[in-house]
Order: sequence, then C-alpha cells, then structure tokens
Amino acid sequence: MQYIDLTHAFTPNMPVYPGDSPPTLTQTGFFEKDGYNDFHISTGMHVGTHMDSPLHMLENGKRLSEFPVEKFFGKGHLIDARKKTINASLLRNKEISEGDIVLIMTGFYAKFSERQYYEKYPEIEENFANKIVELGVSIVGMDTPSPDRVPFKIHKILLGSDVLIIENLANLDKLSKTLGQNGQFRVIALPTKFAAEAAPVRVIAEIC
Amino acid sequence: MQYIDLTHAFTPNMPVYPGDSPPTLTQTGFFEKDGYNDFHISTGMHVGTHMDSPLHMLENGKRLSEFPVEKFFGKGHLIDARKKTINASLLRNKEISEGDIVLIMTGFYAKFSERQYYEKYPEIEENFANKIVELGVSIVGMDTPSPDRVPFKIHKILLGSDVLIIENLANLDKLSKTLGQNGQFRVIALPTKFAAEAAPVRVIAEIC
Repeated sequence: MQYIDLTHAFTPNMPVYPGDSPPTLTQTGFFEKDGYNDFHISTGMHVGTHMDSPLHMLENGKRLSEFPVEKFFGKGHLIDARKKTINASLLRNKEISEGDIVLIMTGFYAKFSERQYYEKYPEIEENFANKIVELGVSIVGMDTPSPDRVPFKIHKILLGSDVLIIENLANLDKLSKTLGQNGQFRVIALPTKFAAEAAPVRVIAEIC
Repeated sequence: MQYIDLTHAFTPNMPVYPGDSPPTLTQTGFFEKDGYNDFHISTGMHVGTHMDSPLHMLENGKRLSEFPVEKFFGKGHLIDARKKTINASLLRNKEISEGDIVLIMTGFYAKFSERQYYEKYPEIEENFANKIVELGVSIVGMDTPSPDRVPFKIHKILLGSDVLIIENLANLDKLSKTLGQNGQFRVIALPTKFAAEAAPVRVIAEIC
C-alpha cells in the first residue's frame, strides 16, 4: 500500500483568501519554563486544505459533523485539467460511480505561495458541476482556492446536492506520476469533526 | 467495508482539561446578511479527540506535521481494560507487530460530559508503556483524557520513542460490539496538518 499526502501543512504564514485574516498558530507553553510545549490556533475555516459543507452556502445546509464517515472514503478519479477548460467533456469515458471522489488537477497548486494563486485560478464550468451531481459523486477536490468566484454558482450546485468540496489540494502531480497504468486509487479525506460550515481536512491517496 | 467513527464532535461546549480555556467556535458570516455562513475557531490543541506529538513533552521533539502519513494507518488492537489495571499483562497473547495501533477501552468515555471524567480517569502503568515501545507500536489511543498525570512520565516514555498518543476517543464500546470473532480491524487516524505539538484528529476504525 502506498500513501500520498494531498494536504498543505497548516502554518501561520500560509496564504489566505484576499480580505480574510491570516490564521494564528501561537506557542503558549514553553518547555524550558512550563515543562511542556503548547500551541493555540485561531483561524477561519477557508484557509489551507479544507472541506466545505452545505451550510457554507445554503441557509439550512448540513454541518460537516453531520455526515456519516462513509462519505469521506471513495474510489478516486484524477482529472487532468492542466491548461484545459474544466467542462463536462473531461468526465467523458471515465467510469465514475455513485460515492466516488473526483480530484481536479489544474497544476495551479504550484503557485500556492504566489499572489496570482488567489487572483487567476481557473473556474469550473456549470455543465461539469451538473454532471458531477448527476453521477452521484461524493466529494470534488481541486488544487485551486475555489471552483468559482462570486456569486458562487458552482459552490451552490455542488453543495445543494450534498457534494462536498475540497479546496487547496497539494501534490496532485505527484499522485499523477505515481499512479499505475490502471490509474486506480482510493481517496480518504477526513475533516476535523467541527460542528461548522467547513473544516481543515487531511486528504490521502491510497494506491494498492 | 464498515466504518466506525471514534471521534467526539468538536463543539464550543465540550469539556476541557481543568484550567484550560474552553474553545470557541463562533459564527462570523451569516447567510441572511452575507450570503454565506462562516465560522471561526480559537482553541488549544488538547481538547476533544486529539493527537499528541513528541514536541508536546520533549524540548526538540517532532511536530505532528513532520510525520510521514504511513504513521497514521495501522492494524488495530482493541485492549479491553474496563475495571482493570492497565499494565503489561493486558498485552500478553496479543499478536502486536511493529507499526500497529493499540486502542485502550476503559469505558471512561461514557463520562465525557461529567466532571469526574477529568478527575478520576485511570492511568497507564509504566510497564504497559515500556512494552508498547518495545513492540514498536505506532500510536496508542485511549477513551480517557490522558494516559497519566503530572509529571507525565507515561507521556514521556511514549513520545520519547515517537509513539503518538490519541486522547478522548469515543465509541470504543461500539467498536467492541461490532468486531467479528477474529477481532480484526484497521485504524485510520488522520490529524490536521498543523505544524504544532498536537492537533485535532479524526479517528476511524475500518472493519473488513
């Protein structure tokens, strides 16, 4: 079994969505003085590799803590969307079944620390999102900050059908290079069990 | 495949270690006014179901974000320690191998919301911790707030050998009832990738 970590490390100097306050991760206990080290975190949910739940965009949507854990495991599909328009044609000829997890590789994650990461990321087209819903996909993840921009129509299509969204994925190129010819892998995407509209998530690709 | 979630939900009113500030999970965006819902979290790491890393008790110990993800997957062993002294005899006749994950069921998690949860939890004896290290166990988890009390000798034995610790597990009784006669299961314990001494962790038992 081989594992690939698709998660950015959460550090205080990681980039944030324009206008959002940066997270703080502050040392509050010090070994020399206290006999132990302790940290304290203060952050919004939409920073680093995180998962959006329907409550984020829907008045009475579900919180992340309300989903059964089965939702977070599924057969993975890596969609190569580098330098391509992200529309439904990219899903053609893929054997995607209900409960599967789709990861979109735009290559944009390499710009994670650059300003243009949040300014110029590619969006997902509406017919792609509708096809994802039609197929019964469990989770859609991407190596960009968001599937769309204001007024967040794609977010609403996906979350409106309880398709969870993972933003700011890392290492999709590594996954792509590691996959065998059959391309088979499993995704395990476990969010913290926060009773909230989103949460940090640890995302692992498991290759047999 | 059957999954059991061994994680307490993270809510602002969850109990905390005596003396620690309670976490806050505050709504900062409101659908009616803002068009979306947002939450903000402020918390120490040692609340709810969380994982301790060596840095917590060792001056130059590793942060949680420094471990390869293989560390978080392993064959599970459920040790029934209800109404028993937690010493090395409980590990006898178990086929525990290097990289396995040991979960200690004291039954104490049922008191999670009661005051005595933090006051009267059972401790792990030194010979149990030494045996865990000798066997090369990857992670030890328990349904109590801590394996020990000040001066945290057990913490230091375990973390000193890079054995990670999970505290405040839930649903071990459910796991016990669900396991087949062979008792086989796998543990997947994915912490958030915080560059810190500990972090919230989502812990799943996977039964084939």
